[in-house]
Amino acid sequence: MSDGPFGGPVLVIGAGLLGTSIGLALRHHGVEVWLQDVNREHVRTASGLGAGVSRPAGGEPALVVVAVPPDLLGAEIGRALAEFPGAVVTDVGSVKSEPLARLREAATSDLGRYVGSHPMAGSERSGPLAGSASLFDGRPWAVTPHADADPAAVAAVVALAELCGATPVSMPPDEHDVAVARISHVPHLLAVLAAGRLADAPADHLALSGQGVRDVTRIAGGDPALWQQIVTGNAAAVLQLLGEVRGQLDLLIDAVSTGTRSDLAALLDRGVAGTRAIPGKHGGPTRPMRSVFVSVPDHPGELARLFADAGSVEVNIEDIHIDHDPGRPVGLVELLVDEPSAEHLLASLESRGWVTHR
Amino acid sequence: MSDGPFGGPVLVIGAGLLGTSIGLALRHHGVEVWLQDVNREHVRTASGLGAGVSRPAGGEPALVVVAVPPDLLGAEIGRALAEFPGAVVTDVGSVKSEPLARLREAATSDLGRYVGSHPMAGSERSGPLAGSASLFDGRPWAVTPHADADPAAVAAVVALAELCGATPVSMPPDEHDVAVARISHVPHLLAVLAAGRLADAPADHLALSGQGVRDVTRIAGGDPALWQQIVTGNAAAVLQLLGEVRGQLDLLIDAVSTGTRSDLAALLDRGVAGTRAIPGKHGGPTRPMRSVFVSVPDHPGELARLFADAGSVEVNIEDIHIDHDPGRPVGLVELLVDEPSAEHLLASLESRGWVTHR
Repeated sequence: MSDGPFGGPVLVIGAGLLGTSIGLALRHHGVEVWLQDVNREHVRTASGLGAGVSRPAGGEPALVVVAVPPDLLGAEIGRALAEFPGAVVTDVGSVKSEPLARLREAATSDLGRYVGSHPMAGSERSGPLAGSASLFDGRPWAVTPHADADPAAVAAVVALAELCGATPVSMPPDEHDVAVARISHVPHLLAVLAAGRLADAPADHLALSGQGVRDVTRIAGGDPALWQQIVTGNAAAVLQLLGEVRGQLDLLIDAVSTGTRSDLAALLDRGVAGTRAIPGKHGGPTRPMRSVFVSVPDHPGELARLFADAGSVEVNIEDIHIDHDPGRPVGLVELLVDEPSAEHLLASLESRGWVTHR
Repeated sequence: MSDGPFGGPVLVIGAGLLGTSIGLALRHHGVEVWLQDVNREHVRTASGLGAGVSRPAGGEPALVVVAVPPDLLGAEIGRALAEFPGAVVTDVGSVKSEPLARLREAATSDLGRYVGSHPMAGSERSGPLAGSASLFDGRPWAVTPHADADPAAVAAVVALAELCGATPVSMPPDEHDVAVARISHVPHLLAVLAAGRLADAPADHLALSGQGVRDVTRIAGGDPALWQQIVTGNAAAVLQLLGEVRGQLDLLIDAVSTGTRSDLAALLDRGVAGTRAIPGKHGGPTRPMRSVFVSVPDHPGELARLFADAGSVEVNIEDIHIDHDPGRPVGLVELLVDEPSAEHLLASLESRGWVTHR
């Protein structure tokens, strides 16, 4: 086996969703991967999937990827730097400043070999069985070198992201934490607050629920054990934004209680501006899109028939929502398409007997 | 033409999305429908779609449906009661107590002929061109009789909801307002606060956005002019819940700043409980579901091929998400299916060459 892109094997510590997926992606490129986990069953499962093998006794990796829960990152990174003096060490945690601060507090020597990173990949699932070689395909992967990071270590972590199919995005650790507080942690917490209002609601009130409240609250179903570590680990950036949210909430309460329409309008307008600030698909400029609504009977094969009919007119469907329809077995499907294609799609579907909503 | 289910014609005041859709649904059942709108273009458009005709001079309706913006409801309902002394009057506004209070303040006589209602139908679109005879199919339609409502008037409004294909749900006006504050207005406002945090964010921070923040903020893109009327009109119920949200936000800020994990866990757990409280599709008991993830090339026909393949194995797809994938032209499609069907679907898709994510 060649020494590969890192000059030697990669040791993955933590064979959960992320660790297993990294192992699978690297093995796909012929890189030698060793796996380690306090849960031996996870190593067996990940090995069985082809994500690597147990580290041989005395084996010296060239790169160590620490993929453990947020609370354990600082300690595990420090241990890896000490145990493998020839290796570059990275991690894939959601928070970057806090583990670095712990390493500095512990007067970790040779910190230049550590460069943090964070693949922006889905986390609804967990454990090695959820792993996939293509989990990172096309996703951003933040690479967050600290001031003393060795350029060769940075290059190794960028190479890791690229080998996994991701797009490396370099930013300092503290800037990363501010960014994910804004686009992930605080939206998660606001979803939690919205969902929390539903927990004790009367059933006949909840029966009026539509797609809106379902979308707003969906991510609040995420694993509380993981999220309390993420939020605690990014406390400073999260608190800064939660303070802004409290200020805006106070303005909102004031505007509603005094009936000051102009203040309420300013808040609502700012929300609209925020939804437009999120980059379009593939990060490109946002094209004008239009929603096409179609009624679809709720039984097997109907969606297939719809997409076959839509596909036959060569219109690309950018996004789909299925509206959960209380009370009867018909779903309302929303197809998001380029504005210029919408009329053509509507006419075509109608000519094939679909009930559209114009 | 027969007198129909209401003993005479129906007058729809306001030929926007809801008014036009009601006209189309009633015409479908052969009911005589008259249309009225301060915007004559709207009446012409709605008539052209087959939603009814202009009210003939001196024509006396049996039922008046007031479908105007929230701010105008009280005045328009009062005017309709005075102008048509033989008619039952209803409205389709998002807020029910406030217009009723205005009618009582104005010492409206004959208030027994008024019964409010509120179809829970989509509002992303507006105007008569967005109208559809099947907009209300299977949707809940709240019917909100006040204490002095004439039982015959209640029956007429229930009949209206049923003729439009909806499921009438009866509740008092104040209870309706509390319910929609919880399942619609406050989730909307929290989405606005989450989206507001994005408005001035640096582009390289927003580039890390995933599906979660998109879902949480989607409804914040709704029309601010409409939403300020809804929120102001339901101020009491909205303020009660916003007060609860502020209390929970203070607890959250306190838990994060002091690092009190148990308090943070309690808040996160409550969010999980809230997501589980929302009734499943068709209001039935929630079945165990599982997500199947598939990579799909982003060009016409690929989704059709995926759904054709999924459909051929007779698995019913309950919901779909397409993950917007920054950086490259492959989408990650999430198919939500019954837990027992998931393995069969995965195996079947893999045998047809699809890249799934296990």
